[in-house]
Amino acid sequence: MLIAPDPDDPRLTRPVSGIDHTGAAVDARVVIEKPLTIYLNSREIVTAMTIGDYPEYLALGFLSNQGMLSADDEVTGIDYDDDLDVVVVRTRVETDHEDKLRRKTRTSGCAVGTVFGDMMEGLEGLTLPQATVTTQWLYSLAKQINLMPSLYLSAGAIHGTVLCQQDVPLVYMEDVGRHNAVDKVAGWMRQTGTDPADKILYTTGRLTSEMVIKTALMGIPVLVSRSGFTAWGVEIARDVGLTLIGRMRGERFICLSGADRLDRDDGESA
Amino acid sequence: MLIAPDPDDPRLTRPVSGIDHTGAAVDARVVIEKPLTIYLNSREIVTAMTIGDYPEYLALGFLSNQGMLSADDEVTGIDYDDDLDVVVVRTRVETDHEDKLRRKTRTSGCAVGTVFGDMMEGLEGLTLPQATVTTQWLYSLAKQINLMPSLYLSAGAIHGTVLCQQDVPLVYMEDVGRHNAVDKVAGWMRQTGTDPADKILYTTGRLTSEMVIKTALMGIPVLVSRSGFTAWGVEIARDVGLTLIGRMRGERFICLSGADRLDRDDGESA
Repeated sequence: MLIAPDPDDPRLTRPVSGIDHTGAAVDARVVIEKPLTIYLNSREIVTAMTIGDYPEYLALGFLSNQGMLSADDEVTGIDYDDDLDVVVVRTRVETDHEDKLRRKTRTSGCAVGTVFGDMMEGLEGLTLPQATVTTQWLYSLAKQINLMPSLYLSAGAIHGTVLCQQDVPLVYMEDVGRHNAVDKVAGWMRQTGTDPADKILYTTGRLTSEMVIKTALMGIPVLVSRSGFTAWGVEIARDVGLTLIGRMRGERFICLSGADRLDRDDGESA
Repeated sequence: MLIAPDPDDPRLTRPVSGIDHTGAAVDARVVIEKPLTIYLNSREIVTAMTIGDYPEYLALGFLSNQGMLSADDEVTGIDYDDDLDVVVVRTRVETDHEDKLRRKTRTSGCAVGTVFGDMMEGLEGLTLPQATVTTQWLYSLAKQINLMPSLYLSAGAIHGTVLCQQDVPLVYMEDVGRHNAVDKVAGWMRQTGTDPADKILYTTGRLTSEMVIKTALMGIPVLVSRSGFTAWGVEIARDVGLTLIGRMRGERFICLSGADRLDRDDGESA
């Protein structure tokens, strides 16, 4: 694997003492969450709550997934300040996304709607690549990911997103913020110039609209989760032709969009 | 119970057809998520993704928990427009919170940091009431809640928050948005003038800082979850004297803050 979780990293968890149900003293390992403020050039964009690993990938992936940084914006540097909990992404020329943001926040009073709208805009005209995914890869991935040492297993209260190719997990990011984990994967992909066309994205979280939109914007044709679906997530997945697989437990799952990419390994296509 | 989940409400789920792991056609019930834009008087505050039940409670609870509506702001009406997906909370006099929001969003570019800061402000000088919670109540509540028909059991991909008194679940709200469920409970409490001092809040979600802050702002002294903790959530719970119980499975749990309220039912206090 290129990036695996590091549950032993002392910066990511803290031992906290308490009592258990019997009244006995226990030390629990608890994940850290701390604010990280993301700037695009001189403009403050958002403060995200994060476990704090890979701040550069988180910033880069967040800005890309929000449509504030397009594929042809040249990133000249990413500066992370550990003391201030600030990360600044710099581009060669000021992007027009900063202007767009300034204009929109003036009218909406809160960026949540804005940011969501920007993400949807990025989907227009998007076509996801053809690809094949076999059920055996899915079963193997789920098993490997479930057994792999992670903050999820050691401390809980965390979500994971894993970039995979065939039955190989490549990059496994975790975070307290539901979408930070996927943004960190997106940032890694952009930084390394990784081709999304033959990849599978696995998430421990639910298949909501935002998750589906982010995966589609990243150009990845297949999104898999042990968790469930939302109606809008399914609708968007069908609109953009994303293969959406959920409720994956052991060797069971449901596919609600893009079943044409599925190969059931028994000679027939599903 | 005063409000129970209504998994049979056709507005909350939609049947979606797909295939399962064997390639057989299946109809899955999937929760709906749709945008709801919340206004405080003439000011647009936020667009939340929600399943859409109890929009009035959601708006009222969100604004209260964000500190945009204080206890003495007189609410003169809450208007929900089903077609526009808009809910407007009106107060007798314009609150200064609208001004505060306008001022802050101008400097931050996105309301996430702002909103979080406002929530923290509300904690200053807050003291949570004395109360007792017995382990038997906790076990009974967990069992009742886990077995109760809900969207969680029938469709998944959803979080629940339950307002309880002793071993009785009173109001059980669900939502796709992690914090909407708790905001709906907060709105119900404000609307009905419910005393928080003898209540217990149960959540299916993680015990993050935001969850702890919201519970404390609602004046509820005990927060319980089947899920895990974050370090900052524990820290804030200790600062405000909130009893924080997590990893509750069967008759096991861990208490990381406010153990003095716990009564283990065997004559000794935990």
